[in-house]
Amino acid sequence: MSTAGFRIDAGWVVTPDDDGGVQVLTGVTVAVRGTRIEYVGPEAGLPEPLRSLERVDARDGIVIPGFVNTHNHAAMTLLRSYADDLPLMRWLQEKIWPAEAHLTGEDVYWGTLAACAEQIRSGITAFADMYFFMDDAARAVDASGMRAQLSRGLVAVTPGADRALREGVELFERWHGHDDDRITVALAPHAPYTCPDDFVREVLAEARRLEAPIHTHLAETLDEIRQLEEQRGLTPIQWAVQVGLVERPVLAAHCVHLTAEDIGLLAEHRIAASHNPISNQKLASGVAPVVQMRQRGALVALGTDGACSTNHLNFFEEMRSAAWLQKVTRMDASALPAPEVFRMATVDGARALGYPDVGRVREGYRADLVVLDASAVHMAPRHDVVSLVVYSAQTADVRDVWIHGRPVLRDRQIVTFDERRAVEECRRRGLRLAERAAAAAGS
Amino acid sequence: MSTAGFRIDAGWVVTPDDDGGVQVLTGVTVAVRGTRIEYVGPEAGLPEPLRSLERVDARDGIVIPGFVNTHNHAAMTLLRSYADDLPLMRWLQEKIWPAEAHLTGEDVYWGTLAACAEQIRSGITAFADMYFFMDDAARAVDASGMRAQLSRGLVAVTPGADRALREGVELFERWHGHDDDRITVALAPHAPYTCPDDFVREVLAEARRLEAPIHTHLAETLDEIRQLEEQRGLTPIQWAVQVGLVERPVLAAHCVHLTAEDIGLLAEHRIAASHNPISNQKLASGVAPVVQMRQRGALVALGTDGACSTNHLNFFEEMRSAAWLQKVTRMDASALPAPEVFRMATVDGARALGYPDVGRVREGYRADLVVLDASAVHMAPRHDVVSLVVYSAQTADVRDVWIHGRPVLRDRQIVTFDERRAVEECRRRGLRLAERAAAAAGS
Repeated sequence: MSTAGFRIDAGWVVTPDDDGGVQVLTGVTVAVRGTRIEYVGPEAGLPEPLRSLERVDARDGIVIPGFVNTHNHAAMTLLRSYADDLPLMRWLQEKIWPAEAHLTGEDVYWGTLAACAEQIRSGITAFADMYFFMDDAARAVDASGMRAQLSRGLVAVTPGADRALREGVELFERWHGHDDDRITVALAPHAPYTCPDDFVREVLAEARRLEAPIHTHLAETLDEIRQLEEQRGLTPIQWAVQVGLVERPVLAAHCVHLTAEDIGLLAEHRIAASHNPISNQKLASGVAPVVQMRQRGALVALGTDGACSTNHLNFFEEMRSAAWLQKVTRMDASALPAPEVFRMATVDGARALGYPDVGRVREGYRADLVVLDASAVHMAPRHDVVSLVVYSAQTADVRDVWIHGRPVLRDRQIVTFDERRAVEECRRRGLRLAERAAAAAGS
Repeated sequence: MSTAGFRIDAGWVVTPDDDGGVQVLTGVTVAVRGTRIEYVGPEAGLPEPLRSLERVDARDGIVIPGFVNTHNHAAMTLLRSYADDLPLMRWLQEKIWPAEAHLTGEDVYWGTLAACAEQIRSGITAFADMYFFMDDAARAVDASGMRAQLSRGLVAVTPGADRALREGVELFERWHGHDDDRITVALAPHAPYTCPDDFVREVLAEARRLEAPIHTHLAETLDEIRQLEEQRGLTPIQWAVQVGLVERPVLAAHCVHLTAEDIGLLAEHRIAASHNPISNQKLASGVAPVVQMRQRGALVALGTDGACSTNHLNFFEEMRSAAWLQKVTRMDASALPAPEVFRMATVDGARALGYPDVGRVREGYRADLVVLDASAVHMAPRHDVVSLVVYSAQTADVRDVWIHGRPVLRDRQIVTFDERRAVEECRRRGLRLAERAAAAAGS
C-alpha cells in the first residue's frame, strides 16, 4: 500500500459543474496524489499507478469538496455565549471590546485552534480570518492543516494603527504562500467607519507593493451607511471604489445594505461579497440582496463570521439559512435553490479567496475533500442528494476530511492536533477573559 | 440497584422557571421513579429511598426537559428531498399530493417511526402529528416510546370527508389517553380553505362530545388570507372564532399573517400558535409576528412541520431560526432572546399540547428528560449555558433521552425500536412512492 496518496470509493460525488449547476456522480472513485486530485471516474478506469493507493471505503457516503468559509474571526470562539441578544453597539462596546482588550497571543492561538476543530468538523477546509495576534493564529492554522487566507485587522480610529499595519505586512512576509499556498495573507482595513481615507491609502500602497489582496467589512449595518453618507457622501461600496481598494482583489464581508448602483459596482470591480446570513440575522444587521447580486453577476460566497456572533461555525446551517432567508424575504420558494447555495459554499468561496484550483472534486484540483456519512435517519430517503447535503446534513455526518491532500479528520477524529486540549484551553481561557473584563470594569 | 427508576447526576440543569425565565442549576441530582420526576436538588439532599436508583453520570452534561414539537406530519419523512425549491402550489399539486396518493398504512408506520428516531435524536420527546393512516402512525409512536398528540387530518374539499371524520373519531376512541396519557388525540379540520363551515360544525359536534382538542392550520399564506377574505369576509383567526372552533382548545399551526385584532383574538380565546420558522421560510410563507403575539399574552410554541418542507426535524435549528428571524425582521438584536425561545420549545409547547405537567425539570413533572453532552468544541467556552443550548448545540450532542420515565436513547443508541430498519424502510418506501407517482404521471 502506497502512502503517496489515497483513493476514495464513493457512493456519490457532489461537485459544482461548468454550467453554474451541481453535478451528482454515483459510484465513482476519487484518487489523490500529493496535494491534488488525479482521477475522478469509474473504478474500472482508474489508471494502474493509482490502483495501489490506500483505499477509503465511502460507498455509502457522499464526497463533496470542502466548504470555504470566507469570513471569520476565528479566535472569537473564546467569546462564544459570552454576550448574546444584545443590540450591536452595546454588544461591542460593553462586552466584546472590553474582553478583547485582555487577549494574549496564546489565547488567540488556542481560540483559533478550537475554531479550526469546529470548522473541520463542519466540513470547512478553507477559511478567511481577520483578527489580531495573527502570527499566533497562523501557527494554529498551520498546525491544524487547514487552508486559510489570514489578515491582521486594521482599525485606525484608535491608537496603534501604524503598528498594526506593520504587523499586517510582517504577517504577509512571513506566511504568504506558506506550504505551497495553503496559507496566504491579505491586508485588512477593517471597515470604512474605522479607517480614515489616508490610512487606507497607506494600506493600499503596501498591498500594491506586496501584491496582497484585501479583506474588509462593507455595508454591514444601516448605521454604517448613515455615517458614511454624512461624512463622505458615499455608500460603502462607492467608497471602496473611490478610495482605490478595488485596485487589489477585494473580499468584502456582509454587503447587506446595497443600492442598485452598489450591486453594479460589486460586479464591475469584481468585489467578492461574503454573505454571512446567520450573523446578519443574529445581530439584526439586515438581509443581503443575494439574489440580485447573483443576477447582476457579482461573486457571492458564504461566511460564518466569528463564533461570538454566530455561536457556531456550522456551514450546513449557514448554507440553508442563506436559502431560507432569500426565500422568505422575497416570498419566493424557488429563490436561491440548493445547487446555487452549494456553489456559493464551495467553488465561489474558493474564487473569493483567490484559489482557482479549489472547490471542486475534479482532476487537477487541490484535494480538499469531505466524506459525509449518509446513513443517519435525517439523510433518508435519497430522492435528491444535493438537497440532502444542503438542507438536511448535520455536522456529525462529516466523517473524513482531507486538506491539501492530507488527512485532517478520519472517522470523526481530528488527526492533526490534540482537539481535546484545544477545547480545554478554549474553555479555560474564555472564562479567564470574562473574569479579567469583569475585574477591570469593577476597578 | 433498583430498576424502578434512575437518578441523573447533572453538571447543569436548564429548566423554565416560574417567572417567565429560565433557571440554570449546577451540580444537582434529578431522580425519577415511575413516569415522574421525584427529586431535583443537591445530591446531599436526595431522600434515602432514591439513593439506590440506577445512577446516570452526566456531571459533564446538561439536563434539559425534552422539547415539544407542536406541529408535524411525521410520515412525510418519506418525501424528504423529494421536491425542494418549488413555489408552494406547484410543490403541493405537482409533487406532494400525487405522491401521497400512493401511500399505504405500512408506509405511514415506517415513515412515522423514522420521524420518531429523528425527533428523539434532536431531543424532542413529545409532538403533535396530523396526517392520515393515523392508526398506523399511532402504532409507530407507541413503539417509539414518544409522547404525542395525534390527529387525522380532515380535508372536506375532496371526496371522503365523512369517512375521514369517522377515522378521526375512531382514532380518538382507540388511542386517546393511552399509556397514562402518553398518547392523546385531537380532531383536525385541516384549514379554513379545505373545510367548509358545515363540515367544521360536524367536527365540532364530535369534539364537544368527545371533549377532544382541535389541531388545525391557520393563516399560513397570503393566498389563504385573500381567499378567506373573498369567500367569507373574515381573517382565518376571525373565522376560527366565528365558526366556534375556540369552544375547544385549539392548536393552530403557522399563524403567520395576523392583524392586530387577530393577535388579540389568539390571546383572548387561548388559541395556541405553533410557530414553524423553518417551514415558513423555506416555503416562502412569511414571518410570523412572534414578538407581538407574546407581548399580547398569546401562547406561542414551536414546531418543525413535516420533514418534507423543513427537510429535518432538528429542534436546535428550529429554536435559533425562530430567534434569528425575529431579530432580523424587527432590526432588534435583543428580540426573542435565548431564554424565551427555550421556553417556547419546552413548557410552552407542553401547554399547547394540553400537558400541565410536561416541559420542566421539576418534582412532580413527567420525566421527559434529555442529557446533552457538553464536551464538543462548539459547546466551549461555557459563558452562558442557556445560550449554548439554544444557539450552539447540535443534534449529535443529545446523548440520552427518557420519555414518560423510560429510556428511549442511551449513549446515542435508540433502545425502543430497531432504528436501522426504520431508516432502511424509510429509504426504500420513499423511493417507491416517487416511482409510483412518476409511473402514474406518465400513464
